[in-house]
Amino acid sequence: MKVNYPETPAVQVRHKSFKLADVDPDSEKPFKHRLTNQDEAHPFMDALRHRLCELQELLYAEHRHSILLVFQAMDTGGKDGLIENLLTGVNPAGVQVANFKAPSTDELNHDFLWRIHAQTPKRGRIGVFNRSHYEDVLITRVHGLIDDDTARQRFEDINNFEQLLTRNGTRVLKFFLHISKDEQAERLQARLDDPTKNWKFDPNDLKERALWDDYQRVYEDALRHCSTDDAPWFVVPANHKWVRDLAIAEIVVAVLEEMNPKPPKPNFDVSAQVIV
Amino acid sequence: MKVNYPETPAVQVRHKSFKLADVDPDSEKPFKHRLTNQDEAHPFMDALRHRLCELQELLYAEHRHSILLVFQAMDTGGKDGLIENLLTGVNPAGVQVANFKAPSTDELNHDFLWRIHAQTPKRGRIGVFNRSHYEDVLITRVHGLIDDDTARQRFEDINNFEQLLTRNGTRVLKFFLHISKDEQAERLQARLDDPTKNWKFDPNDLKERALWDDYQRVYEDALRHCSTDDAPWFVVPANHKWVRDLAIAEIVVAVLEEMNPKPPKPNFDVSAQVIV
Repeated sequence: MKVNYPETPAVQVRHKSFKLADVDPDSEKPFKHRLTNQDEAHPFMDALRHRLCELQELLYAEHRHSILLVFQAMDTGGKDGLIENLLTGVNPAGVQVANFKAPSTDELNHDFLWRIHAQTPKRGRIGVFNRSHYEDVLITRVHGLIDDDTARQRFEDINNFEQLLTRNGTRVLKFFLHISKDEQAERLQARLDDPTKNWKFDPNDLKERALWDDYQRVYEDALRHCSTDDAPWFVVPANHKWVRDLAIAEIVVAVLEEMNPKPPKPNFDVSAQVIV
Repeated sequence: MKVNYPETPAVQVRHKSFKLADVDPDSEKPFKHRLTNQDEAHPFMDALRHRLCELQELLYAEHRHSILLVFQAMDTGGKDGLIENLLTGVNPAGVQVANFKAPSTDELNHDFLWRIHAQTPKRGRIGVFNRSHYEDVLITRVHGLIDDDTARQRFEDINNFEQLLTRNGTRVLKFFLHISKDEQAERLQARLDDPTKNWKFDPNDLKERALWDDYQRVYEDALRHCSTDDAPWFVVPANHKWVRDLAIAEIVVAVLEEMNPKPPKPNFDVSAQVIV
């Protein structure tokens, strides 16, 4: 599949030599519209959200394809905020959001893609994965639950799985929301400082933060092995929320435009219908 | 449960002697705000949608309760339009919409509530049923698939099921979008006249339309038997879309206000957290 992705600060992962450190989380590299700050971005974001809403309706009417948006990030990376900002305004009847937390005992009694497959979007829908099957090559590796050989096998399983989805009409796009360690510190502190945000803080997040470098390493490995032409990974600079949201919105809308969904022609004789 | 529902044109079903014919689908009976037309209603609808959005966030933060909105109607009754208008603007991550079509072979190999139970909303979510378990005492009766004794048993099963949900933190509200037979004719004709709406038309809908009176009769029976204090049915005049949408929005927001969701207090010592 050849798609001309729009020019944004997001970086498509294309090579096995890709380095996460080469993408600046703080990047405000101009968009094709030469936007350089949040105020300039607002009307573009509104227009993209509006168009996303229209395209979802057409996708639903056509009822042949779906799109799956996979979001991964370090804690506080902004998955919830991005999903809210990108999709609030789209008809919730056309969106399926799946959150993947620690697997249940029953889920662990199956292969790692079993619970994932059950949540893929129906025809006509925008599917959203808030965390995903990639956790099974991330947190599991950092905590030594799987070895490198198993990780290699899983990369292959994941690529085969995403190929299956693509072949059956589900377009797969994956986004890593890339923040810096300093930015995470600020965001965690904000959750402690603001009593209305305390409920978002989990003391366990500090233990995972201590493993920052290990996470960056396994993320880089997963991105290198599982970014394909059909199901690409994008690394999105995410220290600035407006950059993150606009970059993702532009890519998602561009892909839906290229999918070009259209309502089907009626399979009955319209003029022969008589309503009594 | 005692809730003071707001004064709207919607009628709560309270008695076994309830008559559907007593509710005028064309009603524009003033709201408590004395609104009498669509233009006056707009700012109220916007404000309710905005508040619904806030309440959903609080419901999610609290993570103790959920709310289930059940929508039933004759074809063209406006379920899709209502759901879109009520919920577009709410974060799709906080909403689960389930559409119940003809059951699959596997679903028919279980009791009629099996597939329904699987789609009830998680804690913190607004669940929406576009059609529901009520189809199993509606279409099945009109087409003679179940007899009256079975229907009586199913009313009891449904009431017990909804009681189970209520007891476990899911608030259940049910809405019948009540249109007239003439209004349905106009809406079906509009789907034929407008080529961009042809895809919404199904010639089979005309066969069901011929059974209009049978449907009204079984709807009335279901409403009479399955409207409880905890899980009430509302009959919503729906010939006028603005009346329909505003009435439902007012009731849903009033119930959520009364549920009064609040973020939980932290279960750790906030001041003891050190981010390094």
